[in-house]
Amino acid sequence: MESRNILKNGERIDQLYSQDVQIIQNPQCFAFSLDAVLLADFVRPNHRHKLKVVDLCAGNGAIGIFLHNKLGGHFTEVELQPPIADMAKRTILLNNLQDRYTVINTDIANINNYIPKDSVDVVLCNPPYFPVTPQSQKNPNRALAIARHEIATNLEMVTRQMSGLLKMNGHGYLVHRPDRLAEIIAICQKNRLAPKRLRFIHPKPDRNANILLLEVIKDGRPGGVKVVPPLIVHGKDGKYMPAIQELLYGK
Amino acid sequence: MESRNILKNGERIDQLYSQDVQIIQNPQCFAFSLDAVLLADFVRPNHRHKLKVVDLCAGNGAIGIFLHNKLGGHFTEVELQPPIADMAKRTILLNNLQDRYTVINTDIANINNYIPKDSVDVVLCNPPYFPVTPQSQKNPNRALAIARHEIATNLEMVTRQMSGLLKMNGHGYLVHRPDRLAEIIAICQKNRLAPKRLRFIHPKPDRNANILLLEVIKDGRPGGVKVVPPLIVHGKDGKYMPAIQELLYGK
Repeated sequence: MESRNILKNGERIDQLYSQDVQIIQNPQCFAFSLDAVLLADFVRPNHRHKLKVVDLCAGNGAIGIFLHNKLGGHFTEVELQPPIADMAKRTILLNNLQDRYTVINTDIANINNYIPKDSVDVVLCNPPYFPVTPQSQKNPNRALAIARHEIATNLEMVTRQMSGLLKMNGHGYLVHRPDRLAEIIAICQKNRLAPKRLRFIHPKPDRNANILLLEVIKDGRPGGVKVVPPLIVHGKDGKYMPAIQELLYGK
Repeated sequence: MESRNILKNGERIDQLYSQDVQIIQNPQCFAFSLDAVLLADFVRPNHRHKLKVVDLCAGNGAIGIFLHNKLGGHFTEVELQPPIADMAKRTILLNNLQDRYTVINTDIANINNYIPKDSVDVVLCNPPYFPVTPQSQKNPNRALAIARHEIATNLEMVTRQMSGLLKMNGHGYLVHRPDRLAEIIAICQKNRLAPKRLRFIHPKPDRNANILLLEVIKDGRPGGVKVVPPLIVHGKDGKYMPAIQELLYGK
């Protein structure tokens, strides 16, 4: 598809060189961040042709697209906001992946109207991170606020829907904020999701983690949590560390 | 006190150079490990003269002794096994710290016979790490097995007693194994201990964490967990990394 015809007002195409894919973005509405690249990297490869993968709170579908080589089977991207779901659809066409990808424009609360419970092998989620409190400074741009703040959904709903969709022993992958770690682990356990693997991302070597990546297994045995080596994003000189450079630009 | 008169059969004196203290050890019975040094380093300084500090599962009391400069006030070291509690007592004398340190030789289950509930500012604990299962390979040396395996106490008991002793807003410090992270966080939350700060220790740069350090606050607000920069013990060359070298031998 000709890329010049595929863009709407305010949109642009960004490339993730390491994956050789192109993603339609709109900075006024939704643009993927490093978090999405990190979550895709954290997912374990699985090339089964019958794999069923669902991305909840998919945005423009970047995470699913980044995984087109690493995961086999069919991807369903679930996004609430119509203009963003529309970007996801056109991003799939742009990458010629329409045979393997579907976009559903709905609230994840309604996902079981579309996908049966206990039917999915892998669920991905990069949800809004920030609780809504009277004090919370929300973005005045409504679309961006919904992507960042728990306005339209929240951790409890995301976790419940992830668990509901997954088959027994299915794998869930979540990217979130370390300051909510205790709550995340408690809610996962309440929803039959056993935390199994954690990675922390530090913005610099001497700074606290600001991103966590979590793999859970539905009905997995308790215990056996692996905390894998952390990633540091920037060196002391402010430049990307080699591992991050490679994730973004390839070897 | 003359150090040659203070030792019993099989014992030796080890020095932690970075803290300028001497610790009585017996490899057949109890010897502190890097874990104890790491936990002491993780504790926040507090020089209040009226501070009350309790070390549960204290062993030979190494952690408390390492903290003699960093924490003010009085230390109570609680150890179940009589010969090990006895080493702790003699270690205190060896360092001339008897004015500030007391050893109680009892099961932590009985600690409230000695120390009232809600009366302690800081509780430290380096408990036995390994659950007892039919498959678990326990050390045939009973004293070492009790120090490593949950034979005489367990995570649930340790957490309950830590919480019971602490005043509201008191701080607890635990060193444990990352594979039990989810369980640790769940049990802390059940016992009014809010996880607040975590550090993971990796044996080498490319290996999963094998030690976790956790700070909790009794009745602390949920959320706000800080995952501080990790420590790597050995470099790729097998030598201690500079930060560890400094913890052991000083600057």
